[in-house]
Amino acid sequence: MNFPTVKKQNKKRINKANLGMDLEEAINQTNEYYLNNDIAVIHKKPTPVQIVKVDYPSRNKAVITEAYYKTPSTTDYNGIYKGKYIDFDAKENHNKTAFPLANVSAHQVLHLKKVQEHGGIAFLLVAWNLYNEYYLLPFEVLNEYWENSLKDGRKSIPYETFKTKAYSISEGYLPRIPYLKVIDEIYFK
Amino acid sequence: MNFPTVKKQNKKRINKANLGMDLEEAINQTNEYYLNNDIAVIHKKPTPVQIVKVDYPSRNKAVITEAYYKTPSTTDYNGIYKGKYIDFDAKENHNKTAFPLANVSAHQVLHLKKVQEHGGIAFLLVAWNLYNEYYLLPFEVLNEYWENSLKDGRKSIPYETFKTKAYSISEGYLPRIPYLKVIDEIYFK
Repeated sequence: MNFPTVKKQNKKRINKANLGMDLEEAINQTNEYYLNNDIAVIHKKPTPVQIVKVDYPSRNKAVITEAYYKTPSTTDYNGIYKGKYIDFDAKENHNKTAFPLANVSAHQVLHLKKVQEHGGIAFLLVAWNLYNEYYLLPFEVLNEYWENSLKDGRKSIPYETFKTKAYSISEGYLPRIPYLKVIDEIYFK
Repeated sequence: MNFPTVKKQNKKRINKANLGMDLEEAINQTNEYYLNNDIAVIHKKPTPVQIVKVDYPSRNKAVITEAYYKTPSTTDYNGIYKGKYIDFDAKENHNKTAFPLANVSAHQVLHLKKVQEHGGIAFLLVAWNLYNEYYLLPFEVLNEYWENSLKDGRKSIPYETFKTKAYSISEGYLPRIPYLKVIDEIYFK
């Protein structure tokens, strides 16, 4: 499990691939743009934390002094766009030739599957950091590789598959990662 | 702001009004029932926490040693039901004659308003603890009182309004608070 790092540290991290901005921050800015322009209401869920100890140094102040990161049981982002329920997770891939399925938890696959079955739009937003490329990977494609991996043991999705079965998202200025443009092409044509 | 209490303490709290179970726990059980029976995919969002300090006593262990509760910018529950986006917050009311609007933040009202404008189903689930009654309060009714309160200064919704303009949810065994039955009556008739 990857522990989310503390915000302040993130901001100082330099990452040439995406101009010093990490994926989460870029998506949050994108969602803020969509919200402020009345295009969609999509938010990141808070990081789940198991709180063990809380101190109350004064009546109205609570300080959490012991807590642990929990594995999320769902995905990080959800909301509504054009009346449709949207649900996705964002993944950074540092590999050259394939996206390892180890980046996704069984919980998340199951969750996205259920979302799709109930009529929602489910996908992964994958950043290929070495190429500075973003893709919307529809749940069907993820699921195909996931189910096959249980049979043939292949634990990754090749870069080629992203070129042919996923949808490229061109990075922009405002919004940063205009993934709803791709949603329009796939689901609202 | 009300600080959420630590889980372990909650479980031991005795509350005659709802048989020892607090509202959050009852709704979580309800949502679990809906999920397991493939009726809906609705989850509680994690409590937002601002993480300030993290210790790493060993390579794979992260202990949060300083963190603070943050005010949520949205509501606690969202998901999908019959292809529709659902969004709500749950409120416990300990008063006898009215539901104080102080229980709701301006952020939450704005969020629910946006959800409704984008075609989602937005409401409050209000527990009247003294009467052991549950109501689904549609966003329109909340909004009417919210906007009037800015003009006439009346800062609560009378119990009478719940009787006439909200929808009673009969408490059950499984699921505990069958609010989707009421959603069916209002939105899917």
